[in-house]
Amino acid sequence: TKMKLPGQEEFDISSTCENVATGEPESGPGSGLSPDGPSDTDSRELGVPKDPVLFIQLNELMGWPQALEWRETGRWVLFEEKLEVGAGRWSAPHVPTLALPSLQKLRSLLAEGLVLLDCPARSLLELVEQVTRVELLSPELRGQLQALLLQRPQHLIWTTRTRPCCWSAHPREASHDEEAPMKEQHQNPLRQKLPPGAEAAAVLAGELGSLTQPLGVFVRLRDPVVLGPLTEVPLPSRFFCLLLGPPTLGRGYHEMGRAVAVLLSDRQFQWSVRRASNLHDLLAALDAFLEEVTVLPPGRWDPTARIPPPKCLPSHHKRLASQLREFKGSSVRRRAPAEDRHSHRPHPPSPELRRTGRLFGGFVQDVRRKASWYPSDFLDALHPQCFSAVLYIYLATVTNAITFGGLLGEATNGAQGVLESFLGTAVAGAAFCLMAGQPLTILSSTGPVLVFERLLFSFSRDYSLDYLPFRLWVGIWVAIFCLALVATEASVLVRYFTRFTEEGFCALISLIFIYDAVGKMLSLTRAYPIQRPGSPTYGCFCQFPDPQGNESQWIRTKPKDRDDILSVMRKMLSDFSSVLAILLGCGLDAFLGLATPKLMVPREFKPTLPGRGWLVSPFGANPWWLSVAAALPALLLSILIFMDQQITAVILNRAKYRLQKGAGFHLDLFCVAVLMLLTSALGLPWYVSATVISLAHMDSLRRESRACAPGEPPSFLGIREQRLTGLVVFILTGISIFLAPVLKFIPMPVLYGLFLYMGVAAISSIQFTKRVQLLLMPAKYQPDLLLLRHVPLNRIHLFTGIQLACLGLLWIIKSTPAAIIFPLMLLGLVGVRKAMEWVFSPQELLWLDELMPEKERNISEKGLEPEYSFSGSDSEDSELMYQPKSPEINISVN
Amino acid sequence: TKMKLPGQEEFDISSTCENVATGEPESGPGSGLSPDGPSDTDSRELGVPKDPVLFIQLNELMGWPQALEWRETGRWVLFEEKLEVGAGRWSAPHVPTLALPSLQKLRSLLAEGLVLLDCPARSLLELVEQVTRVELLSPELRGQLQALLLQRPQHLIWTTRTRPCCWSAHPREASHDEEAPMKEQHQNPLRQKLPPGAEAAAVLAGELGSLTQPLGVFVRLRDPVVLGPLTEVPLPSRFFCLLLGPPTLGRGYHEMGRAVAVLLSDRQFQWSVRRASNLHDLLAALDAFLEEVTVLPPGRWDPTARIPPPKCLPSHHKRLASQLREFKGSSVRRRAPAEDRHSHRPHPPSPELRRTGRLFGGFVQDVRRKASWYPSDFLDALHPQCFSAVLYIYLATVTNAITFGGLLGEATNGAQGVLESFLGTAVAGAAFCLMAGQPLTILSSTGPVLVFERLLFSFSRDYSLDYLPFRLWVGIWVAIFCLALVATEASVLVRYFTRFTEEGFCALISLIFIYDAVGKMLSLTRAYPIQRPGSPTYGCFCQFPDPQGNESQWIRTKPKDRDDILSVMRKMLSDFSSVLAILLGCGLDAFLGLATPKLMVPREFKPTLPGRGWLVSPFGANPWWLSVAAALPALLLSILIFMDQQITAVILNRAKYRLQKGAGFHLDLFCVAVLMLLTSALGLPWYVSATVISLAHMDSLRRESRACAPGEPPSFLGIREQRLTGLVVFILTGISIFLAPVLKFIPMPVLYGLFLYMGVAAISSIQFTKRVQLLLMPAKYQPDLLLLRHVPLNRIHLFTGIQLACLGLLWIIKSTPAAIIFPLMLLGLVGVRKAMEWVFSPQELLWLDELMPEKERNISEKGLEPEYSFSGSDSEDSELMYQPKSPEINISVN
Repeated sequence: TKMKLPGQEEFDISSTCENVATGEPESGPGSGLSPDGPSDTDSRELGVPKDPVLFIQLNELMGWPQALEWRETGRWVLFEEKLEVGAGRWSAPHVPTLALPSLQKLRSLLAEGLVLLDCPARSLLELVEQVTRVELLSPELRGQLQALLLQRPQHLIWTTRTRPCCWSAHPREASHDEEAPMKEQHQNPLRQKLPPGAEAAAVLAGELGSLTQPLGVFVRLRDPVVLGPLTEVPLPSRFFCLLLGPPTLGRGYHEMGRAVAVLLSDRQFQWSVRRASNLHDLLAALDAFLEEVTVLPPGRWDPTARIPPPKCLPSHHKRLASQLREFKGSSVRRRAPAEDRHSHRPHPPSPELRRTGRLFGGFVQDVRRKASWYPSDFLDALHPQCFSAVLYIYLATVTNAITFGGLLGEATNGAQGVLESFLGTAVAGAAFCLMAGQPLTILSSTGPVLVFERLLFSFSRDYSLDYLPFRLWVGIWVAIFCLALVATEASVLVRYFTRFTEEGFCALISLIFIYDAVGKMLSLTRAYPIQRPGSPTYGCFCQFPDPQGNESQWIRTKPKDRDDILSVMRKMLSDFSSVLAILLGCGLDAFLGLATPKLMVPREFKPTLPGRGWLVSPFGANPWWLSVAAALPALLLSILIFMDQQITAVILNRAKYRLQKGAGFHLDLFCVAVLMLLTSALGLPWYVSATVISLAHMDSLRRESRACAPGEPPSFLGIREQRLTGLVVFILTGISIFLAPVLKFIPMPVLYGLFLYMGVAAISSIQFTKRVQLLLMPAKYQPDLLLLRHVPLNRIHLFTGIQLACLGLLWIIKSTPAAIIFPLMLLGLVGVRKAMEWVFSPQELLWLDELMPEKERNISEKGLEPEYSFSGSDSEDSELMYQPKSPEINISVN
Repeated sequence: TKMKLPGQEEFDISSTCENVATGEPESGPGSGLSPDGPSDTDSRELGVPKDPVLFIQLNELMGWPQALEWRETGRWVLFEEKLEVGAGRWSAPHVPTLALPSLQKLRSLLAEGLVLLDCPARSLLELVEQVTRVELLSPELRGQLQALLLQRPQHLIWTTRTRPCCWSAHPREASHDEEAPMKEQHQNPLRQKLPPGAEAAAVLAGELGSLTQPLGVFVRLRDPVVLGPLTEVPLPSRFFCLLLGPPTLGRGYHEMGRAVAVLLSDRQFQWSVRRASNLHDLLAALDAFLEEVTVLPPGRWDPTARIPPPKCLPSHHKRLASQLREFKGSSVRRRAPAEDRHSHRPHPPSPELRRTGRLFGGFVQDVRRKASWYPSDFLDALHPQCFSAVLYIYLATVTNAITFGGLLGEATNGAQGVLESFLGTAVAGAAFCLMAGQPLTILSSTGPVLVFERLLFSFSRDYSLDYLPFRLWVGIWVAIFCLALVATEASVLVRYFTRFTEEGFCALISLIFIYDAVGKMLSLTRAYPIQRPGSPTYGCFCQFPDPQGNESQWIRTKPKDRDDILSVMRKMLSDFSSVLAILLGCGLDAFLGLATPKLMVPREFKPTLPGRGWLVSPFGANPWWLSVAAALPALLLSILIFMDQQITAVILNRAKYRLQKGAGFHLDLFCVAVLMLLTSALGLPWYVSATVISLAHMDSLRRESRACAPGEPPSFLGIREQRLTGLVVFILTGISIFLAPVLKFIPMPVLYGLFLYMGVAAISSIQFTKRVQLLLMPAKYQPDLLLLRHVPLNRIHLFTGIQLACLGLLWIIKSTPAAIIFPLMLLGLVGVRKAMEWVFSPQELLWLDELMPEKERNISEKGLEPEYSFSGSDSEDSELMYQPKSPEINISVN
């Protein structure tokens, strides 16, 4: 049942969500699904079965008394769209607002009116006969009313997206074939937006001079029926509501019609009214709706202002929970916020990190769990989006390989080089993708490891050691240490990597990315001055090299391209926006004939160091005891590898990404250890999971719902978890060694731009960055962050300051000869975080970071401290803030 | 009574507004005053006298059962501020939202509770005794309750703006001196924000275990009394509300307390309850409030999301009007939108433009009207803001004088130059400021006039004429023609200058400003390459001259400076932001020692042309008949001057600027004619009102209300209409001729930046620019403009396209030798607009532009066409859009 065809999952959301619900029970209310939309599972859990989506249309009676006709003036799925008569178009979807009196008038009209539940009518004609069988109507009035109801209404149907509109033809023609849906109805593009199984509801409202008394009819059809041209889309109608009366003051019937439509567009009311057995149930549902409405006072809000749809909808769960709270009282209330907070925390999922107590116990569990997903890891990749992800990540990987290969060549004085970098990336990456616990991570030579290697080389040069054999022993020891960590299930310690540690590490890596990209481009600017010969406006003048000249242009162009694509083109194409940006860059470069440096791939397949074979000899010219002494640097490197690998894994396995196939911390570390051995033996670079590229990879594989109500933002469904994209990327990287003629058309600045973009996207998406901005922002202009509601500003600043100091220290250490202790300092982050418990209260840390395991246990046993219970306003916090629609770190490619 | 001292008008709003209301009757509903605020005059017109501002505070009972204490958890003036307990600060002001059940529960609690209207209590003690005299209380419970009510509540008082807060000390100390307000209360900065005469209302709510029945008390004190430490500001309290009850589910009493507070913060409810004579009146006021609330359906809006205060509040008038509409019915409704539209149109005020039918009749009227304001034209200038305006406009004027002086020198081959420009600007400007009908306009040599002069010179050179005498005759003829136009009251024709013409002209002038500024800076970039000798990072490379290099940096720096100033500093300083930016630029320039070109003022006081005296001889070497032939070019120049002068006057006299002293179209033209004669005789440049600088002048003189409720935007009160700023500017300009040693420190790029800023600000503020943006914007991303609701998009695009074509044509004509017919083309704009009546319907033109006089008469006689009456949704248009808070064109300096 896990097999999916491309495009299928857009309506196959419920199964996906059930997995989330069972696999991650703690993600309950904060899971961020859009449960009022077509894909509601929270409601199913709570005993509300999934009802069809309802399209509601309001037809208003116009032109009284001379030229009566029905005209569609509003429509609803979740939000309201109004007909703008003058402009001849639909308004943007907005949150519907009502006046309270219209709801009250509607209630009394329905209470006195005709309510037919499970009406057996099978056509519009039958329905009209049923509806007009009201005592108060005289025979001739009945006939007039029947003719009026059978009249074809005027719809505004948008034929194409660019051409504005056309009114449906022949509006007043006698319609004998009114049962057959019209051509325009079928061509309506709205229909494709509604999921299969959607039903319609028609609300008819207006003023009719021949009536002496108001007439209110509410019909629920037993079987939904296509009511001819009544609705603009030829969907079977389930509900029908008629509100007519003598001309009154104001637009009373219009407003009542809107009120019915808004009621029907409410999931809860719809649920109740589908199951109502009599008038009393209907009115009770209306009263329940009234209990839940939000009231805006007059004078402070213009009732005619249109509120744009919120970025994230309140969940159905929350609505029910708040109702329950009303009954259960304060004890429930007091605990609720804490639960909410737990749920929104990016905590590693627990099953993978439960200590078994057996040697290699966690590793064995990882292998077992991942084995069951293995076939789906390949079948799930059958989607065009994966193709785009491959291209994007391939370019990033190749750029990384060539950049770090060059750096490695410099650092090791030619002992390794670009060819080794390509080969190692391809071999290690592909092997990791096939074996690893989390195949979404992209293996790469990372900055810290490179720094370590540089130190190792200069050490061996200073003491005249044979570098590669020495390095082989370091690798062997690292593999041994890592295997020991796997055996002792040390990976469960990643629970101590809280957001503080993650953010510190992520910020550091992102800054390195940005620094390198800017540095590379600056050096290019000097090496290749921008100059176009033969141009008439060619001029020469002297200027400081502007550090933001070249790349800021790149950054500026890129979002613009993406905007254009987004707006004009389709989702499909937007998946390829990064690739398009790259191709555009290449094309522009080729078109202008710029003398930019191009991607250079070695042309011969042999080790960079002349005269060595592929296999490194175990001792070479080194004394035998060096193989033992290598254990000391290996210890430091092991810490570095462990931290680097596991922090990346923790970040990637955050609950908010809603991964279904679970993590594999032990298995991942095992693979890294094995590959360490392999690459050391072959004299290739060392590899570990790379945070920024892995995040970009994951982000290029986001699944979002396509069919959603107008105005509703697409909901994040999860990540296409599979092994194929990574595998293909690394196979392509391997092939690239032989693809020099093709790749030489790609200019390096374009690839550096890609790097810069990834770095900026990663750093700008973490909470830390927001808090740094708060440091400089006066209180008046601060956004309404949940954090700011609960933690005093100076405490937030203190926390940010400590984080900034740590980051600065790490950067300095990285850049000095003391870089050898960098791994220890990274570990020190966890210590700093632990020490913070003396400075900050658990409440503050809960908001600023998350709790460490033992503290968490304390809290859940004892509850929060008494002073905390004063904070009654917690239950009023907006759920929107607990529930980011999509993951926080999004290196968005769409 | 027109005399005002500096700072006095902040609370002297009502008299100002009355002037608006009487002087401009048609600006009624759209006048954009904030009528729910402290300064409500609309309500006075409608029979609602001005009530004191009410500060409402909610004290909640916390810590039950162990440690009962009152804590302030919310406060209201117009918007709600919540206490954020965890963060220890007040939330940002936001629109309060309520749940409907809490309002209903409150209603029933009050209906059964104790309502004391005109309670004679004179202290908290007396009040508490009165309040606890309820039958259901047992004696010991009464004692307990009295003690509780006398307990000092905890307030969160912000001591300073930067230090967050301090809790008021000694929270539970027995307070024998509770009648005396505490020190903290007096230090509360909130108090300064509330206007004198403000009253307080205290709402006390909470759960008390010893109670068996809910207790609801509502008290209106006969005389407001300072109730000791009950409220955080030591204001006399008018209302007191106590809502206590046994512990219930949810936070019922908290929500009811909020509901009372929100009710009291509603002007309409407050008005009713101040006049209520019994319980029935109180409940009726509550019901009236409920009738008017806006209801947001559940599920589509998170009720806990905080809505930021709207940019503009709905007016009290509109609320009453919508209530009236309910009674009067559809005939009122159908006409209402048209009235609204009329009111928001920037139509010239009618009294000045009514044709008298007598020779010089309009001129005489203008002189009479302006004479009565003459003393106040000098006294109204006594405000520090005027000083800042003088500095800002002085620099703009001097830059203009030097730039156009240079251009004039080029154009006339040295017949005139910078000295003539300075002298002419000073003399003509000062004379105009002293005599003119609209002294806010700044006279300057404008682009079109300069182009004309260039053509005149090349003509006289081609035919070997003596230029200055020929020019004198042109000037004489122009003066004669202009006087004829004054005599025949031709200025009433400005009613044909609709927004179409204004915008075309304004866009053209702004574009000339931008083009000149950019061009000047580009030429500087070539002449003075940016280079700083001696710097270690000094490098030399070749590059295209980037057309956006220098000035975009300027533009980028400037808003940033202004943001910083806005946030850290005060309103007072923000008036000087432009001046600060200029000084900053100068300081930076001096500090870095850049070799920028500086403002160069001539050092000798004599005519630029060698050998001529100040007075131009009437014939010189020209034949006598040339003095007659000069009438032909003079005719064209007269049209140009008329258009240039009067369009600027129309723009400046728009209703939205709420000028009180009226316009003087005839008088202005008369002054221009006289100055034409003077400048021609002295061989100085010709002057006419300059749109962009005049708008900047007006904008630097905006008056805004200072004391407003938290969250309420300051309301625009009008312009400081006076003659002194202009006069001083031109006197300074005259003195500048002798100030060369001081002015040479001002770098020209800074002044060009000022020009660029003014041009960009002017062009980006007109509706035309918004419509041009719409041309490129996909429908999905378009803002919710009122225009888009009523006019089909392709019609809007057509209108914009015609306008763009006109603008393009004008630009081309201006740049070619055909520039001589430019004035006719400018007049042609009115013709194009007239011809549009064949293409567009009156409805469309009403929204896109405004109606021309005769069409307008037709419409008001016949009403709108029948199809229009279908557009029932008009009455639902947001008033916010009719009513821009501040003028559309705002070259904001604050």
